[in-house]
Amino acid sequence: MSLLISGTVAIDNIKTPTATQEGLLGGSAAYAALAASLFCKPVHLAGVIGHDFPKAHVDLLNSKGIKLDSLEHNDGESFTWTGEYHEDMNNRTTHKVGINVLENWKPQLSADASQVKFVMLGNMSPDNQMQVLDQCQAAEFVAADTMDLWINIANERLHDVMKRLDLLVINDGEAKEFAGTTNLVEAGRLLQKKGPRYVVVKRGEHGSYLFGDGAEEFFACSAYPLESVFDPTGAGDSFLGGMIGWLANSRKTKPSFVDLKTAVAHGSVTASFTCEAFSTQRLEKVTVEEVKSRLEELKHYTAFAM
Amino acid sequence: MSLLISGTVAIDNIKTPTATQEGLLGGSAAYAALAASLFCKPVHLAGVIGHDFPKAHVDLLNSKGIKLDSLEHNDGESFTWTGEYHEDMNNRTTHKVGINVLENWKPQLSADASQVKFVMLGNMSPDNQMQVLDQCQAAEFVAADTMDLWINIANERLHDVMKRLDLLVINDGEAKEFAGTTNLVEAGRLLQKKGPRYVVVKRGEHGSYLFGDGAEEFFACSAYPLESVFDPTGAGDSFLGGMIGWLANSRKTKPSFVDLKTAVAHGSVTASFTCEAFSTQRLEKVTVEEVKSRLEELKHYTAFAM
Repeated sequence: MSLLISGTVAIDNIKTPTATQEGLLGGSAAYAALAASLFCKPVHLAGVIGHDFPKAHVDLLNSKGIKLDSLEHNDGESFTWTGEYHEDMNNRTTHKVGINVLENWKPQLSADASQVKFVMLGNMSPDNQMQVLDQCQAAEFVAADTMDLWINIANERLHDVMKRLDLLVINDGEAKEFAGTTNLVEAGRLLQKKGPRYVVVKRGEHGSYLFGDGAEEFFACSAYPLESVFDPTGAGDSFLGGMIGWLANSRKTKPSFVDLKTAVAHGSVTASFTCEAFSTQRLEKVTVEEVKSRLEELKHYTAFAM
Repeated sequence: MSLLISGTVAIDNIKTPTATQEGLLGGSAAYAALAASLFCKPVHLAGVIGHDFPKAHVDLLNSKGIKLDSLEHNDGESFTWTGEYHEDMNNRTTHKVGINVLENWKPQLSADASQVKFVMLGNMSPDNQMQVLDQCQAAEFVAADTMDLWINIANERLHDVMKRLDLLVINDGEAKEFAGTTNLVEAGRLLQKKGPRYVVVKRGEHGSYLFGDGAEEFFACSAYPLESVFDPTGAGDSFLGGMIGWLANSRKTKPSFVDLKTAVAHGSVTASFTCEAFSTQRLEKVTVEEVKSRLEELKHYTAFAM
């Protein structure tokens, strides 16, 4: 079943403790679309790129069957992020953000993209998220991500978006900030009250929590264990992309909690591949068989007898 | 099967964002012995208390069938810890530590205590841990905890202890420090090389990781989800006490990895109760049925279909 992934498409310049690379494919929509395309076809991508955007990155997205009919080509410079990971990969410093073409972007969906039933609003301004959603004429399942910037400078607009979501996926630190509590379990429950029936709190190296209806519907998903993390950029976007890609493929626009759990596990494992190389370099080579194999391992790693 | 729990027995003064209480029962051996006594009888406790130690605390330990024949009564003042938890319960400040009777303590095991097959060396100086171990004449399974203080000031002696352990249980931050890496999975594997066949890395609110033989033997245990944490003091000690209590009760001095996983799950759930009230006030009321019930929930909360 068709799926729309909207969000940022970026040029990333990344430094890790062991290597540096510039001109990399980045952005919430790029990671999520690649992750979703593993499980679902067609994936429509809505975003904006500038005149300087490398053709190789566009070719890569095309080669995965991702529909770029809602990807705007603008005369300005592309959105860029320049950052550095420290010895502890959980800590990173943003050196530079070039908003550029994102500044005045008004998403325009193609006729096909506006008819999808599954919609992902990747991390971007709540205004852009709302503009995308307003053009979706057949949306039945809507998922979104956000970040501290929007919680701080566009809180009211973000609350408007929240009311229209079926699923919010958010980082642990940002969940606490948005919910106004330091307890993660309480944070998830409080965020549900802002609108989305389902909330996923991403816990980085520890995995994620999924909250559904009532105390019964709770899922603690462990992360696939990695002995070394090369570049975690885009792991959260790959997580949500994998999740919604799996859901769209299942064709269940009213997924059960059991479906949501399976989707979370798929998202989690998909994200683990993203961490293993710069940018999308590992993600773009992943096969469904590799995902299944890690899912089997994750099941084995989390099972216990009483 | 009989079990020896050694470590500190303390008077704690604790402040949380909502309440303050003084003269509380604390210390690694006190929490662990109470947790272990849920699953196993008899539990021998080796520790030291001063002239000012409240009789009510001794009575409580006695009432749980904990054998105090290796608990030294000293003329000095009891070991005390005074600390404060902040709004985010993951952060605490130590205001005062009174070493007192611990300063010159030389553990002396009773004849019965020296014959146990299961030994827990709770968090105390590596010298004290070694002194206990040297008196154990029939030890077949030895588990220990430690902390940053000993990693920093008694590193060599701690390495001597490590060589004699079957199981090390350690906090995530301390595991990274002791192993010299910022990756938790790598940290667990590196700590195994220092001696213990099994390593558990405690991840606070996120649960724990258990490492066994080779990549196959890995267990990610989620924490039982708590929407509010009242006082997390002693959760780690309750975890290890619950674990080794369950192992001792199983009578398997050569437990399989499946046994270790079950022990970790029992320790994790036992620790969740400790967090729900000051000191041991919730832990001392827990029943085996309540533990089983939370284990069932934890199983439900972590299962997923592929």
